[in-house]
Amino acid sequence: MNITEIKRRVKSVRQHFKPQGVEAMIVIGVENVRYVTGFCGHDSWALILPHSVFLLTDSRYTEQARGECVGCKIIERKESLIKEIEAILAKARGISVVGVEDSCSVALLKRIRKGLAHKIKPVSTVVEKVRTMKTADEVKCIRKASKIAFDAMEWALGQLKVGMTELELSSLYEYRLSYYGAKIGFETIACFGANGSRNHHQPGRKKLRKHDTILLDFGANYQGYISDTTRSFAFGKVTPYFRKVYETVARAQKAGIASIKAGVKLREVDIATRAVIEPSEFPVYGHGTGHGVGLEVHELPWISKTDKKGILKAGQVLTVEPGIYLPGKLGVRLEDDVLVTETGYEIVSRDKRFDIKVDHIPLLK
Amino acid sequence: MNITEIKRRVKSVRQHFKPQGVEAMIVIGVENVRYVTGFCGHDSWALILPHSVFLLTDSRYTEQARGECVGCKIIERKESLIKEIEAILAKARGISVVGVEDSCSVALLKRIRKGLAHKIKPVSTVVEKVRTMKTADEVKCIRKASKIAFDAMEWALGQLKVGMTELELSSLYEYRLSYYGAKIGFETIACFGANGSRNHHQPGRKKLRKHDTILLDFGANYQGYISDTTRSFAFGKVTPYFRKVYETVARAQKAGIASIKAGVKLREVDIATRAVIEPSEFPVYGHGTGHGVGLEVHELPWISKTDKKGILKAGQVLTVEPGIYLPGKLGVRLEDDVLVTETGYEIVSRDKRFDIKVDHIPLLK
Repeated sequence: MNITEIKRRVKSVRQHFKPQGVEAMIVIGVENVRYVTGFCGHDSWALILPHSVFLLTDSRYTEQARGECVGCKIIERKESLIKEIEAILAKARGISVVGVEDSCSVALLKRIRKGLAHKIKPVSTVVEKVRTMKTADEVKCIRKASKIAFDAMEWALGQLKVGMTELELSSLYEYRLSYYGAKIGFETIACFGANGSRNHHQPGRKKLRKHDTILLDFGANYQGYISDTTRSFAFGKVTPYFRKVYETVARAQKAGIASIKAGVKLREVDIATRAVIEPSEFPVYGHGTGHGVGLEVHELPWISKTDKKGILKAGQVLTVEPGIYLPGKLGVRLEDDVLVTETGYEIVSRDKRFDIKVDHIPLLK
Repeated sequence: MNITEIKRRVKSVRQHFKPQGVEAMIVIGVENVRYVTGFCGHDSWALILPHSVFLLTDSRYTEQARGECVGCKIIERKESLIKEIEAILAKARGISVVGVEDSCSVALLKRIRKGLAHKIKPVSTVVEKVRTMKTADEVKCIRKASKIAFDAMEWALGQLKVGMTELELSSLYEYRLSYYGAKIGFETIACFGANGSRNHHQPGRKKLRKHDTILLDFGANYQGYISDTTRSFAFGKVTPYFRKVYETVARAQKAGIASIKAGVKLREVDIATRAVIEPSEFPVYGHGTGHGVGLEVHELPWISKTDKKGILKAGQVLTVEPGIYLPGKLGVRLEDDVLVTETGYEIVSRDKRFDIKVDHIPLLK
């Protein structure tokens, strides 16, 4: 992690201090700690003061932290994290209110309040907001994660055969990621046939049958950055019914992506995808249309019709993922990761081998 | 999931209502929701009233919930979870205070308080405490998870060779779990050589060399229940130094396990393991000595010397995992899952192929 970038991030976080009414902030969320320090471990917090940053970790991680962190002081705690923070704050000047991420648990906030002499104020999505704007290097990592995910999935699908279970397929995929130095981005969703309509289905012992449909929602974690893509396939044979469903979802996804441009309202993307499915004979999906993706698989912003104000900004990376779910029959979802630009968009997860086309139904044999 | 067991669990949870000063409880933690309803999905809450239980889910999970839940009413939400709960509470009688798990986020509690007319009270580890006492069926699942973990690790180690990366080894292991219908219990830790001293090391591209030592912390998730075991090995050759470290840790682990019996203080286990390492030439480990294991890899109770009151109870399953970490050289940790009984203990993760013996250093070739 380069020091200039870390300094930019910390500076951006500090710009929220005044509006939030705090002079310092305790960062607890694991991805947020990573974002402001470079540290990739767990169970460690960052403390951002007006002129310095501390990483508070323990003996399990000190070695690792020394190799990863830049621009911060590493504290190997002897006492509880809270006591170590109190010791630092006791020496600091000009701090009256300390912000704590309101994503932390109620129980933890109570302990923090008890252990610190300063006034504590829960603050909402401060680092998360800074994280929505990706640098070119971050986009590169997401692109690379996506490339690896497709490499691994192509390999796993090469071994597909009648009788293979959903769990075997998802595990083959996950295993192959390691060949490329990546990990899973999230729990892989692999659905055969009617399981596709259970749209957060956990892969199980269901076996692939001749002429099943397949839904795969998969991602890779490459150097902390996650890709999140969904593809749907016919196996053995494309039925006219599957074709109709697939074409409708592909058109919806295309319309959603085409609506993306800096300055456009987030909800416009949602409206664009649903507008394609609504007049069809198929039910409109019950989930959101997309979300930010980066250090977390689901992060700000959310593409939702209930968000009347949110606006797309150049540098955001979002998924666009409409679907059609027909219980007892099948499910189709198509999802890509899209970078917002000043002039439109770029599909970060574009991959020739897995391109989504309205007039081409992907058939596996 | 059988209805009698679910009813027993809910009844045990309700016994905490009066001491906590609540008449109903919103259950949010994903494992807790599973425990009281049988539902294995995500993003869903349980509402426990004096005479009924509700699972509040959404269209993604309704099908799944119908197949998994017993003893509760399934609500497919149209509005937010909070609005649906308010609608149920508005019709319920005799409820003045509603408990909310204090493991939920500060931001979420704020939204709940805003959305519900009832008085809200954060409550601490209610379901978690009930979960510490495992039934025979739960122990069976942990035992089976452990058996699968060792099956998969035996297979992965069969493919070990010089030049293989940590990530390849951990991925081979994780892939193989799927053969047995299991998933990973947690992110596998695989360390070669000096990486073993970074005791929450994430497996990377480091390649296995001749005469490296190996540390593997691995588990399986079988039907929701998790095993958590660590083994350390010599590769190619056992050096006298490794032997000395290994023997010390093995003796410490043996002493810790031998101290286990219903009625004994939790901290006695910690004292027993450390008492073996303290007089040795090696540093005493900085992490805890063990933790409960079940639906979560880390759950109540914790084995810690700072806990002066906690007592082992028959039916608890805990890890015992002392270690010795020598930065720049190697690390050895040995961990088993142990059931507390009235007369002593049973090693749930016992497996002949991976038995820990003081006088036998496991050598891989």
